[in-house]
Amino acid sequence: MKKIGIIGVSGYTGLELIKIILNHSGFKLSYLAATSEGEISEIFPQLAGVLNMKVEIADAKEAAKRCDLVFLALPHEKAMEFAREILEFNSTKVVDLSADYRLSLKLYEKNYTKHLDPKNLSHAVYGLVEINREKIKKARLVANPGCYPTCSILAIAPFVNFIDKNIGVFIDAKSGVSGAGKGLKTTSHFVSANENLNAYSPITHRHADEIKEQIGILAGSEIDTIFVPNLVSITRGMSVSVFAVLKEKIDADKILKEFYKDEEFIRFRDEPVQIKNVVGTHFCDIFVRTACNKIFINSAIDNLLKGASSQAVANANLMLDEPENSALPKIAYGI
Amino acid sequence: MKKIGIIGVSGYTGLELIKIILNHSGFKLSYLAATSEGEISEIFPQLAGVLNMKVEIADAKEAAKRCDLVFLALPHEKAMEFAREILEFNSTKVVDLSADYRLSLKLYEKNYTKHLDPKNLSHAVYGLVEINREKIKKARLVANPGCYPTCSILAIAPFVNFIDKNIGVFIDAKSGVSGAGKGLKTTSHFVSANENLNAYSPITHRHADEIKEQIGILAGSEIDTIFVPNLVSITRGMSVSVFAVLKEKIDADKILKEFYKDEEFIRFRDEPVQIKNVVGTHFCDIFVRTACNKIFINSAIDNLLKGASSQAVANANLMLDEPENSALPKIAYGI
Amino acid sequence: MKKIGIIGVSGYTGLELIKIILNHSGFKLSYLAATSEGEISEIFPQLAGVLNMKVEIADAKEAAKRCDLVFLALPHEKAMEFAREILEFNSTKVVDLSADYRLSLKLYEKNYTKHLDPKNLSHAVYGLVEINREKIKKARLVANPGCYPTCSILAIAPFVNFIDKNIGVFIDAKSGVSGAGKGLKTTSHFVSANENLNAYSPITHRHADEIKEQIGILAGSEIDTIFVPNLVSITRGMSVSVFAVLKEKIDADKILKEFYKDEEFIRFRDEPVQIKNVVGTHFCDIFVRTACNKIFINSAIDNLLKGASSQAVANANLMLDEPENSALPKIAYGI
Amino acid sequence: MKKIGIIGVSGYTGLELIKIILNHSGFKLSYLAATSEGEISEIFPQLAGVLNMKVEIADAKEAAKRCDLVFLALPHEKAMEFAREILEFNSTKVVDLSADYRLSLKLYEKNYTKHLDPKNLSHAVYGLVEINREKIKKARLVANPGCYPTCSILAIAPFVNFIDKNIGVFIDAKSGVSGAGKGLKTTSHFVSANENLNAYSPITHRHADEIKEQIGILAGSEIDTIFVPNLVSITRGMSVSVFAVLKEKIDADKILKEFYKDEEFIRFRDEPVQIKNVVGTHFCDIFVRTACNKIFINSAIDNLLKGASSQAVANANLMLDEPENSALPKIAYGI
Repeated sequence: MKKIGIIGVSGYTGLELIKIILNHSGFKLSYLAATSEGEISEIFPQLAGVLNMKVEIADAKEAAKRCDLVFLALPHEKAMEFAREILEFNSTKVVDLSADYRLSLKLYEKNYTKHLDPKNLSHAVYGLVEINREKIKKARLVANPGCYPTCSILAIAPFVNFIDKNIGVFIDAKSGVSGAGKGLKTTSHFVSANENLNAYSPITHRHADEIKEQIGILAGSEIDTIFVPNLVSITRGMSVSVFAVLKEKIDADKILKEFYKDEEFIRFRDEPVQIKNVVGTHFCDIFVRTACNKIFINSAIDNLLKGASSQAVANANLMLDEPENSALPKIAYGI
Repeated sequence: MKKIGIIGVSGYTGLELIKIILNHSGFKLSYLAATSEGEISEIFPQLAGVLNMKVEIADAKEAAKRCDLVFLALPHEKAMEFAREILEFNSTKVVDLSADYRLSLKLYEKNYTKHLDPKNLSHAVYGLVEINREKIKKARLVANPGCYPTCSILAIAPFVNFIDKNIGVFIDAKSGVSGAGKGLKTTSHFVSANENLNAYSPITHRHADEIKEQIGILAGSEIDTIFVPNLVSITRGMSVSVFAVLKEKIDADKILKEFYKDEEFIRFRDEPVQIKNVVGTHFCDIFVRTACNKIFINSAIDNLLKGASSQAVANANLMLDEPENSALPKIAYGI
Repeated sequence: MKKIGIIGVSGYTGLELIKIILNHSGFKLSYLAATSEGEISEIFPQLAGVLNMKVEIADAKEAAKRCDLVFLALPHEKAMEFAREILEFNSTKVVDLSADYRLSLKLYEKNYTKHLDPKNLSHAVYGLVEINREKIKKARLVANPGCYPTCSILAIAPFVNFIDKNIGVFIDAKSGVSGAGKGLKTTSHFVSANENLNAYSPITHRHADEIKEQIGILAGSEIDTIFVPNLVSITRGMSVSVFAVLKEKIDADKILKEFYKDEEFIRFRDEPVQIKNVVGTHFCDIFVRTACNKIFINSAIDNLLKGASSQAVANANLMLDEPENSALPKIAYGI
Repeated sequence: MKKIGIIGVSGYTGLELIKIILNHSGFKLSYLAATSEGEISEIFPQLAGVLNMKVEIADAKEAAKRCDLVFLALPHEKAMEFAREILEFNSTKVVDLSADYRLSLKLYEKNYTKHLDPKNLSHAVYGLVEINREKIKKARLVANPGCYPTCSILAIAPFVNFIDKNIGVFIDAKSGVSGAGKGLKTTSHFVSANENLNAYSPITHRHADEIKEQIGILAGSEIDTIFVPNLVSITRGMSVSVFAVLKEKIDADKILKEFYKDEEFIRFRDEPVQIKNVVGTHFCDIFVRTACNKIFINSAIDNLLKGASSQAVANANLMLDEPENSALPKIAYGI
């Protein structure tokens, strides 16, 4: 049994990590930490009768001593402080769910803040399993992708060589409110979010550069990326509409199916994707349609699972030589 | 007081028409009709203590006799049967909320069914007040625009001459469930729509051709139009994301404000639009942003009001020489 | 035109007061105040294009000088400070939407805090229009009832003399999240409230004593009151289930209709009440059913209107000798 | 591996049964049936990539031949036809999720229809595991309790001997829309149920007699039962408020904990129960509070799991000599 730690366990992704690991036959929760102490079932009353475990004050060395792998479910900046200290201390592996190791140094510092750990950044692997599987297996530090980038890149990847790169991609994304985190904000107030929908940070959202950088790597050259996220009045789940101009006529369905032919967690859909079919699961559902020289690609994931915690576990499975699909949830909440 | 009739009063747009007309100082409800008889407060219990009025079996001649203007809130095909008969009978005016007179004959028959009234179709006016005000004043028959087209065309109209028409526009639209009507369908079941979001009829939705035809008229030549609507888990309201490539660098805010400078019901927003700010009103909120040679236009309306019933009343106001803004609601439900 | 002020305009009830007064033919907004300055349409973007008015820093004397009547939409304790100062200064009238003047001194201090203005408390009138109409007409200071008490007392009042007072009433109430106010709290976070329902402050909620005191006055002796409110995942509206044991067999429908026979805003329902039929209105819908010696009374109101702002305007109408129903909304949002 | 069949698999409880059995180490799905044929992933697209299995036309003998136990997820009346035929054919066991075997003959025929299988009704066991565990182990036919009765009886059972039976219990229950089933009804239309809440079938709901009969058996004499269910705008989950008068002062918490001291799936709560903490699980959360001689008991379950499918599996576990908690879900959806 691999010993697993979670630092920053009190947020949504912390809870989802716990839920998955409780069902994992090869992983054992050895260390839970946050900024204050307590019983895990006091933070999450839904875990009463499920898990009795102390949450400790977060301490990097302690985590490194007691774990084979640590998940960092922390805000950016905080995450790299812990990652650096753990990776210096011993050979414990790290999956970081924050943005700290997702971008090249230049784009990171443009979008976030000064980077505190450029050394580890230089060898961190971008943890999109379907794309970087082999690199992840050998990584000590994996940067777990953002939720919007996961959903967008999986939609775009099969088609990077067929789209007109000068025009690039237009992405309209929709996310449930859990994507904004557990913190109290006006925009997450029930009365504000309910019966409402609005775009936010259009074009300038930090995930735009993450998507652009990754699809640029896949394409071998830059693809212009216009990205607009929308907040929708659901708890979890996200979907993405990608629009682009094609360089030539293609059989999009065939290309899609060929590209992901061995992927257990990519599902091809004949109808536009439905968020309720993926919430609760590690699946990414994809639908594609073309019209003359235009393409519409439509994908959906659970922002907290495939877009965060189950993707983190998928990375951990690869890094710790477990079966890749261990404990990854397949049964949707939707009825 | 102008005498007003509503045929097909039992649906959502019928109810919204009633609500507006009850607040109208120049209009009086003279005729309510549907496919079965009864008290209006039996169909809509929320009208108990508000309106006592009989709903009669729909009859075109009766409507024509008793009304100066009749709103047709009927399914397509049914609407043109009534419109034709009313317009033949006397000089009563008609605002048709269905699709029957919105499209050119060819596009109508491509998207819907054989047209039964090409004669009246030839002189029907497309009732988008901000665009066709003067024509509407003189019209006997106005085709009230679709909800998606209203929201999309108002967003695109100021920019038709600045966008690259070969590439055209990509429209990702989101609508509340009331847009699908009161009929019982699996996709409108609470359990299906709640905590869900999905695109439907991508590219092929009937409103695509309505948008394309109208923006083509405004531009003087065809603009390719990719239109994808999404069903979102809210009762009412819609928003639209329009993406396009610009032919040249523009000051989009200035163009937008200039284009609509005298329009009382277009609001310019500095932040992306919020559906909750327009639901309950006749406003269309618009936000625009450019990035190099790309433009993102974002608009929101109440699908049942600006996208249907209040737009119909705005048309009726013009047709009957009432103040254009009479009874058009301005106070949003959102808090 | 009576000059009207609102102190504490930035919350939900402040907004609802504005909306109603904008439609009032006898009232004019003369003074808006809060804890910080600004344009009203900055606080409420939905009012852009509807109302241009400055919000000032709240000042009791200024309000008294410029208004015939002031609405206090403030937290308890704060409200009585302003009320006392206004009432000392001149003859301006006050409708207080807080709890400060709703209870007898003893119950107030048990449930809230030390009372700062017992003098005015002694003559404040409990502003439940259907019950205290004549007293309200002569009042200088009206305590606008709580939302739960409004809904509960209107349900119970017709039956106080028929129920077994020793056993008393059991009240299970349900309220939308707006009842908890605009402040940021964990329980109002979308992710917490959505797809959830929970009782809170069972038995000990402050509104229990308000209900008990008022129905005791109506009955002439104490009626034991068990009150349990529930938070439900809707924006606004509330309903109440009242259970009691009857002393004798009664014709409950007849008693109900007789009791409220002249009330324009009480609607009798043949089916259990629906929140969506009252949201947006000043109506209280009531349904009653008996089974042997048990009675079930079921009522619904809009917590922000009949339970707060429209009730406040109804009180102001009486206090300022306007038609009692002026501007009180009748058209529900529900479709 | 026990061979398991589900007849009537196309509804919500059918899907939930499948989900649980897929995680069951001792059960194997051997037979799925409905009124029409097809692939299970066509009926439930969320099962794509999870389960490939044919749904057959329901046939009692076929089910009996191929299964050790059959779940009947059918409408009442239909269920007893199948149960009777299966039980006649061989020793296959049956858990019936309908109402057909829950009530005594007299109450069944009062509330539903003429009973077609009084012989089996006479030995059917009421499958409330916490109450009837030993009888269930020996049963061939178990009547799975209704959702409201499960939630209500578990709340009331510990207290039957302490409450004043003449006055009885007042129950106000709230259920998500999934409780009304997958069929298309006006009340389940998104626009009708969203932002709404209403009581329905007050006092006369069929579950009232089921609750009354069972708590009467527990008490040894009749307890008057006033039951009012409410429809709330959530997908799943239910809670119950029980009010009663106590014969004497009691330590309710102690009685509750003692009564359920060995029950793995009853959780005691210090705060009122929250639906989101039980949705997705087999838990019943209970909270209790007294005030003088009154008691308030508050419980919550997932209507589709503890109130239907997981309770059915719990019964099947006992009947087939599996560990009682096998596959019963403990991890809530709520975050």
